[in-house]
Amino acid sequence: MLDLTRLETPCLILDRSRLQSNAARMTARYANTPIRLRPHMKTAKSIDVARIVLDGNFGGVTVSTLKEAEYFADQGCHDILYAVGIVPDKVARAASLAREGVRLSLITDSPEMIAEVGREAVANGVEFEVMIEIDSGERRAGLLPDSEVIATLGRTIHEQKGTRLIGVMTHAGNSYQGRSIAEIEAIAEAERLAVVNAARQLRDAGLPCPVVSVGSTPTSTHLKTFDGLTEMRCGVYMFGDVFQSEIASCALDDLAVSVLATVVGHRRDLNAALVDAGSLALSKDRSTGAPGLPRDIGFGLVCDAVTTAPIADVRVGQVYQEHGMLVSDGAFPFDLLPLGSKVRILPNHVCMTSAMYEGYHVVDGADTTVMGFWQRINGW
Amino acid sequence: MLDLTRLETPCLILDRSRLQSNAARMTARYANTPIRLRPHMKTAKSIDVARIVLDGNFGGVTVSTLKEAEYFADQGCHDILYAVGIVPDKVARAASLAREGVRLSLITDSPEMIAEVGREAVANGVEFEVMIEIDSGERRAGLLPDSEVIATLGRTIHEQKGTRLIGVMTHAGNSYQGRSIAEIEAIAEAERLAVVNAARQLRDAGLPCPVVSVGSTPTSTHLKTFDGLTEMRCGVYMFGDVFQSEIASCALDDLAVSVLATVVGHRRDLNAALVDAGSLALSKDRSTGAPGLPRDIGFGLVCDAVTTAPIADVRVGQVYQEHGMLVSDGAFPFDLLPLGSKVRILPNHVCMTSAMYEGYHVVDGADTTVMGFWQRINGW
Repeated sequence: MLDLTRLETPCLILDRSRLQSNAARMTARYANTPIRLRPHMKTAKSIDVARIVLDGNFGGVTVSTLKEAEYFADQGCHDILYAVGIVPDKVARAASLAREGVRLSLITDSPEMIAEVGREAVANGVEFEVMIEIDSGERRAGLLPDSEVIATLGRTIHEQKGTRLIGVMTHAGNSYQGRSIAEIEAIAEAERLAVVNAARQLRDAGLPCPVVSVGSTPTSTHLKTFDGLTEMRCGVYMFGDVFQSEIASCALDDLAVSVLATVVGHRRDLNAALVDAGSLALSKDRSTGAPGLPRDIGFGLVCDAVTTAPIADVRVGQVYQEHGMLVSDGAFPFDLLPLGSKVRILPNHVCMTSAMYEGYHVVDGADTTVMGFWQRINGW
Repeated sequence: MLDLTRLETPCLILDRSRLQSNAARMTARYANTPIRLRPHMKTAKSIDVARIVLDGNFGGVTVSTLKEAEYFADQGCHDILYAVGIVPDKVARAASLAREGVRLSLITDSPEMIAEVGREAVANGVEFEVMIEIDSGERRAGLLPDSEVIATLGRTIHEQKGTRLIGVMTHAGNSYQGRSIAEIEAIAEAERLAVVNAARQLRDAGLPCPVVSVGSTPTSTHLKTFDGLTEMRCGVYMFGDVFQSEIASCALDDLAVSVLATVVGHRRDLNAALVDAGSLALSKDRSTGAPGLPRDIGFGLVCDAVTTAPIADVRVGQVYQEHGMLVSDGAFPFDLLPLGSKVRILPNHVCMTSAMYEGYHVVDGADTTVMGFWQRINGW
């Protein structure tokens, strides 16, 4: 069996033990509650990962693209929420899945769009379950929780052909701006209240609202009051990343995904070294450079390839397409990072980093034997 | 034939006419000079694009990954420079190409690495042509132009088995920090002098140095003195991007690649709209937000899908994995961007944006008929 230190670099490493722990922790948190976990697969985009995070849950997943929906349907997941506002041009493709027996739910915040989506659904011979998207504070998509449009949109979805109203949903993406557990708890409560209030408006109007859905990794981790919620959709929790560890969603030791890279240059004159993982291998996400965070790890935190322990304060200070520049505040530890040696780099934002790869080389905890390659589905 | 406005979004659009103009302009610039153009294919990663940029040139290409090298070799390019410092672990794969008859040249700045690379080459039954990488001001990889190591490294490459010295090369990536044509001209001259001086050291030591190679899109565009150079490697010029237009490498009308997206939401309360192109469709490169640039277009400049004319000052102000938030300084032009309408988004940094796609939907200038799909090779 191949040892991970023999892999060609750059490549993506997934620690199955850590993934299993992360998955089990979130599943346990919502077990024996009225809230069902519908993991968001936009981070992992892998059926092998899905099997682990679905263990002990009801089997539904959330996706961010129709390509993901098609992939997971092909792999046997038949309860899929496509959690990006539906537009008429995408209905024919969604309808193909529905005709194959997949329960594909959609979301919308637009009376104008959903009227046309309903007509397209009918033309394609299907009916979709639809949730109304609420903006609980992210200020991205969704209706504000007190909008009068909620009830009228709900009525349209409920009464028109081609769509069926099943509930309300929101995503507290603004939890990424939380800088303490108290702040994130407050955002989680605002997220909950937003959809609970929206659900009440639908019910007050005599409309059905069986599903009341929230989801983001920080709020799913710190939510204290569950009242009125029926569904949780979180995604990054299964892998974790340095940004999530900085905002207390996980510990650094929980991070399940890293980039294996090779030291390809020493620049003693610059107190720096080069690796063969640059902006394509790591992405250019600089989330740990955001204001108010404990630290800035540049484009990645550099760890020992075998033990995964951070190497002093070495981080990827700069990226170029295929080069990363390793820097350190003190004297650079060239002896610990000889030319040709391998490192594991923990990413800032694992959704972006993972998207650069076709799949994961899988290892199990401290054992560096590569036990397999798990494919991902990228693109649209 | 399909019209581009009927394509599923997000997707990548390539304007062949603009590509041809960009290619012809650079080819003409170096025609009838001692400098041969060896286009860098790291931006386009497509044989169809390569055929256009190689027209009128000698046929050699530059690549940034061995996967690109294998792809272009498969497609009939047999003179390839792999322009990232070689490490021993990558020699076996490079040797496979060499054994198939591909002239694959390598670069190095390390006596330690090249000794081992030579042994690996011999073990794999091949000899590689090798250039010494010089740091002409980027402060990334390479030896400083006055380093005494140049001659000793050159001698090792020349005398050991498995490698053959063919010259020196540099990449003035620091030209991206140039903020006027005068500054970029000065960087181009420093780039030239660095390799010319390095070449002199090799020749003074009695070593061969037939190839003296430079290359970056800004410097290749503004270089005034050609003396001593034999090769130019530039890549972004074939597509252009908003950042390159901001630093005067091209005009905005030259940009050949854009992302087609659909308007999926209106947020009149936020004076903003949403498109279905987010951080995965556009990348998170924020190069036009760099200090000293005329303007900051966020994550992309929004243009009419058919005419490609910018729509007022609308730009992608924020990205989320699958959402982009369109913003405007003035009143947002909702009437010009109705729900469900398509836009073309010009990217900040086309190398990063293109890397998110499997290929290009090709159109020809003002004709919006899609004439084909050109595949790319991504990954490593």
